[in-house]
Amino acid sequence: MVTSGAVGVGRQRLKYRKLVNSSFADLQKPQMELDGKACAAVGQSGLMALYDMLFTQLDVSSSQLLVTDSDFENPNFRERLCETVESLLDLKVVPVFNENDAISTRKAPYEDSSGIFWDNDSLAGLLAIELKADLLVLLSDVDGLYSGPPSEPQSKLIHTYIKEKHHNEITFGDKSRVGRGGMTAKVKAAFVASNSGTPVVITSGFASQSIVRVLQGEKIGTLFHKDASSWEPSKDVSAREMAVSARECSRRLQNLSSDERKKILLDVADALEANEDLIRAENEADVVAAQDAGYEKSLVARLTLKPGKIPSLAKSIRTLANMEDPINQILKRTEVAEDLVLEKTSCPLGVLLIVFESRPDALVQIASLAIRSGNGLLLKGGKEAMRSNTILHKVITDALPDNIGKKLIGLVTSRDEIADLLKLDDVIDLVIPRGSNKLVSQIKASTKIPVLGHADGVCHVYVDKSADMDIAKRIVMDAKIDYPAACNAMETLLVHKDLIKSPGLDDILLSLKTEGVAIYGGPIAHELLSIPKADSFHHEYSSLACTVEFVDDVQSAIDHIHLYGSGHTDCIITTDSKVAETFLRQVDSAAVFHNASTRFSDGARFGLGAEVGISTGRIHARGPVGVEGLLTTRWIMRGIGQVVNGDKDVAYTHKNLPLE
Amino acid sequence: MVTSGAVGVGRQRLKYRKLVNSSFADLQKPQMELDGKACAAVGQSGLMALYDMLFTQLDVSSSQLLVTDSDFENPNFRERLCETVESLLDLKVVPVFNENDAISTRKAPYEDSSGIFWDNDSLAGLLAIELKADLLVLLSDVDGLYSGPPSEPQSKLIHTYIKEKHHNEITFGDKSRVGRGGMTAKVKAAFVASNSGTPVVITSGFASQSIVRVLQGEKIGTLFHKDASSWEPSKDVSAREMAVSARECSRRLQNLSSDERKKILLDVADALEANEDLIRAENEADVVAAQDAGYEKSLVARLTLKPGKIPSLAKSIRTLANMEDPINQILKRTEVAEDLVLEKTSCPLGVLLIVFESRPDALVQIASLAIRSGNGLLLKGGKEAMRSNTILHKVITDALPDNIGKKLIGLVTSRDEIADLLKLDDVIDLVIPRGSNKLVSQIKASTKIPVLGHADGVCHVYVDKSADMDIAKRIVMDAKIDYPAACNAMETLLVHKDLIKSPGLDDILLSLKTEGVAIYGGPIAHELLSIPKADSFHHEYSSLACTVEFVDDVQSAIDHIHLYGSGHTDCIITTDSKVAETFLRQVDSAAVFHNASTRFSDGARFGLGAEVGISTGRIHARGPVGVEGLLTTRWIMRGIGQVVNGDKDVAYTHKNLPLE
Repeated sequence: MVTSGAVGVGRQRLKYRKLVNSSFADLQKPQMELDGKACAAVGQSGLMALYDMLFTQLDVSSSQLLVTDSDFENPNFRERLCETVESLLDLKVVPVFNENDAISTRKAPYEDSSGIFWDNDSLAGLLAIELKADLLVLLSDVDGLYSGPPSEPQSKLIHTYIKEKHHNEITFGDKSRVGRGGMTAKVKAAFVASNSGTPVVITSGFASQSIVRVLQGEKIGTLFHKDASSWEPSKDVSAREMAVSARECSRRLQNLSSDERKKILLDVADALEANEDLIRAENEADVVAAQDAGYEKSLVARLTLKPGKIPSLAKSIRTLANMEDPINQILKRTEVAEDLVLEKTSCPLGVLLIVFESRPDALVQIASLAIRSGNGLLLKGGKEAMRSNTILHKVITDALPDNIGKKLIGLVTSRDEIADLLKLDDVIDLVIPRGSNKLVSQIKASTKIPVLGHADGVCHVYVDKSADMDIAKRIVMDAKIDYPAACNAMETLLVHKDLIKSPGLDDILLSLKTEGVAIYGGPIAHELLSIPKADSFHHEYSSLACTVEFVDDVQSAIDHIHLYGSGHTDCIITTDSKVAETFLRQVDSAAVFHNASTRFSDGARFGLGAEVGISTGRIHARGPVGVEGLLTTRWIMRGIGQVVNGDKDVAYTHKNLPLE
Repeated sequence: MVTSGAVGVGRQRLKYRKLVNSSFADLQKPQMELDGKACAAVGQSGLMALYDMLFTQLDVSSSQLLVTDSDFENPNFRERLCETVESLLDLKVVPVFNENDAISTRKAPYEDSSGIFWDNDSLAGLLAIELKADLLVLLSDVDGLYSGPPSEPQSKLIHTYIKEKHHNEITFGDKSRVGRGGMTAKVKAAFVASNSGTPVVITSGFASQSIVRVLQGEKIGTLFHKDASSWEPSKDVSAREMAVSARECSRRLQNLSSDERKKILLDVADALEANEDLIRAENEADVVAAQDAGYEKSLVARLTLKPGKIPSLAKSIRTLANMEDPINQILKRTEVAEDLVLEKTSCPLGVLLIVFESRPDALVQIASLAIRSGNGLLLKGGKEAMRSNTILHKVITDALPDNIGKKLIGLVTSRDEIADLLKLDDVIDLVIPRGSNKLVSQIKASTKIPVLGHADGVCHVYVDKSADMDIAKRIVMDAKIDYPAACNAMETLLVHKDLIKSPGLDDILLSLKTEGVAIYGGPIAHELLSIPKADSFHHEYSSLACTVEFVDDVQSAIDHIHLYGSGHTDCIITTDSKVAETFLRQVDSAAVFHNASTRFSDGARFGLGAEVGISTGRIHARGPVGVEGLLTTRWIMRGIGQVVNGDKDVAYTHKNLPLE
């Protein structure tokens, strides 16, 4: 252990001593700066006593080793030092190093004085090399090395330092408030030590358990390693760089004609079919590995590209290719003034990040949607599908023309974890998670990038007293049974109180039970129907189970849905059109249905073409989202030299013009 | 100071002792649990030595006071204890209390044993009362008291504990891993001590400087105070509760007919005019206070409601009232199948948070826009406009009918700071900052709620070689001079290299200089024109200054804009329509103009009616945003009992129907 702090501890103590020994008159005089060496002498003993005490709490002995740079000039010294440290470590005694400041003869500027070491960071680096340490951890007051001053929002933590890449891009902030050093000194020491073979991690000394976490291999702080620049160079492109490249490529893509984008999709479809054997071989390798690893059957099923899947994917890409071009559509056209025409046009969002689990077909679908809509794309798949994803990515990007560039679609396979990707809110425009509710809610909780998706699908069917009970039965059964794991399946059945013990309701409940649906009751239904009590009204079973509760009327049903629902899809069964309109108007969910199964809440069934996802967010897109969820708009204005000039020159007409 | 940890320290030490003194055979036998009292005895001395050492580093003496509950049964004891502590404090010695565990006679369950104290938290509470402490700080491993287990995302930190409000809503998580206590014990102790007159703050012992920050009055941790429940009860409604109420009211508001919402706006307009004198009196009080406080003139100007402002605000509210109703518009209508009709309709976003500086008229504008669009609203104004905002808020909410409720619009005046409001991403749908770029970028950096606004407006004008130089001059002058502080003013002038030293360009530069514009050059222009060098191309002067640079052609101009622009508004001046279309198509900014001043980039000039803001975000709304920025959509479907049933029953038609 290399410590600092002796001068600081000593200065504090001496200041106090001086104060108590000063007369009031003394204090009026200009105060001499305290001598640094005196402070070091006083502080070092206090510091060592403190370490001794702290280590003693853990029944560990510590020892003090004070060195100066001139010691290292003696060739025998280095050898003896190693022997001493090894003896101490054998005895489980922690050696605590510090520079022997009190007797050191050198002065500022320290760095040039000897070239051996000049501060605690370089001392640590030197000792790591001398002692052939396995790892050097440098503790800082920030989380590691940033690309700029850590206080500035655009500064990013660098996880692996690569000299060629980072040397020129880093700007350093102020030094530490106490002591010499600062981040510049740490980076220099880390670079020297790592080049001599001791890997170095710079991390925060304030963060909880940071040393333990480094030892456990967690990716915290900044790693320096002599081989870092040769680590999988193609894969070590950072996600940030991939996002920036994807945006550049997407700008070229959107600048093509609609037919050129269509041609690319047709080429992708052809390439998939041409490489079917290769893709299936890689996929089978993933499937075998997943089976061997004992993954769940359902996961293995989702991972498998069944026979016929590749041609069917190719077919749907060709359908997409023939779709009306979603971008460069004029959505609104206004004559602002004579010869000054404003158009609102559709354009790509920019760069999308898709996080998906298992299903390699999701990669193909989303990549073709991105090409159709002119977007750049980062793909982060599950590691269980790595070989499938890699070959699919290669086949698709190989089919992209050179004037666009393969980097339009990046497959993130580097060390970057999802958490790191989610921090890139300045270069990624939208995250689309494709996977479990848990994945979606974790992503929503940990990013500032807008997320298109839904974490919960707590869908309700409300059966009003005026319901046609045959319709009620048909819809309730479909909403629960058709695909219980779907997000648009019914989770809660609300029933008007007048239907308690009615034959119609009894028939519905019996049918549900017959189909194997476990029925839980809210406080009222639990009592009246003698069924088990539901733990919570805000619960998505995603299986053959549902909650039943009675409500006073349509207004109570609406209130219940607002209180416990997830704003996904809710349905009323009634023959009373006034009651229906109250429900349709008031229920504040993405989709609200009258006399139709909640299962219709789906992009394909809505006729949206390709479905990007279902959103329960209220911003940008809501409910089932088609390709328009990948688009934004631009305002284009064409004039003949008009100026604003305090709004005195132009006669505004603001006339709507027909769209061409 | 009340400490714990003696048993833990002692156990660790004894375990080690036992290990070294055990034979291998001993270790095969079942190991006895170490005696707690023995651990306490061993640990206490180590603990005190540690404190002594730590305090000694600061030249502070510490002292040990070990007490048992039975001590407190002796009436003289309490009196003598106070005297001892006072003597110690007079001598600047820190008393360190702990329960005398080693000799204490009691056993678990501790709480019921004496009723005097039963753990370190209750001991701390007891001592605070006995010693009539000014403040008790209880340190925990979490940031304070949460509404639920702190590990769960929906749990919120409670800043001020109010028994009536919080007692039933809090669920406690697990106890601390070491020692008795846990949050339940801390809350109990805090409640008892605060009721006896000592305010208590529960805060994190891990957070940096937490005790100092509490003493400096920072709002960290959870405060317990006997008067908390009577603190400005009307204002102590938390921002969360205000947001929830605003949503409830907004649901009633959107359920009104269009005419009823119109009537409310007309009532608000009337109320403003009827209360003009009162409003102006309060505003004048703010203005006088701001002048007295020495605020900048520009701020005082923005704060002032000039004569005629109230009637003009009322007039614009009446215009808004007569606007076409933005909500419940059918945007798309599809026949999904026979008798199954799907509609996409416009609806309010939900709850908006407006953060605005100075201008009280912004309150009126945004409140009327919220009413028109059926949204709930939280307003957070600057404290310099507090009296103006308060009266305007009162006048507007008094005009709301009872069936909607005044809580539709909440004025946040409680202790809640902007930072706290920005955490409410589960109950607020959109933040609209109205103020400086700094305010906007701070808000964007610190919230997960979508933000509608722009931090930068680095707008470019590119003069192509084919430009009509008269038009170029007119537009460049207007873009820079018309209102230099506006976000749509030109900051960078890009010029085709063929125009270097052309009479047309010289004329433009001279005119700019004549109007007092300071001209800075990029690397090339700096050399060629002998003008000062610009520090950065990404710079918004917001004043009579701009950057000039030469580029090779339209493609270089586009690349420059992508690299350094802010995606706000960019303009090309050219007579070559092919070049113009390249620019219009490729520049990836919210607004892109050909031969028209950047100053046209504005909601009113675009003919959007009321302007909500200008967005450089790509999600939800882009460029000048009208009332549609406050809206989202819902899908409404009406059927006659259709079900999905594996898509076997329904014949999908997906026919577009005319909008009604």
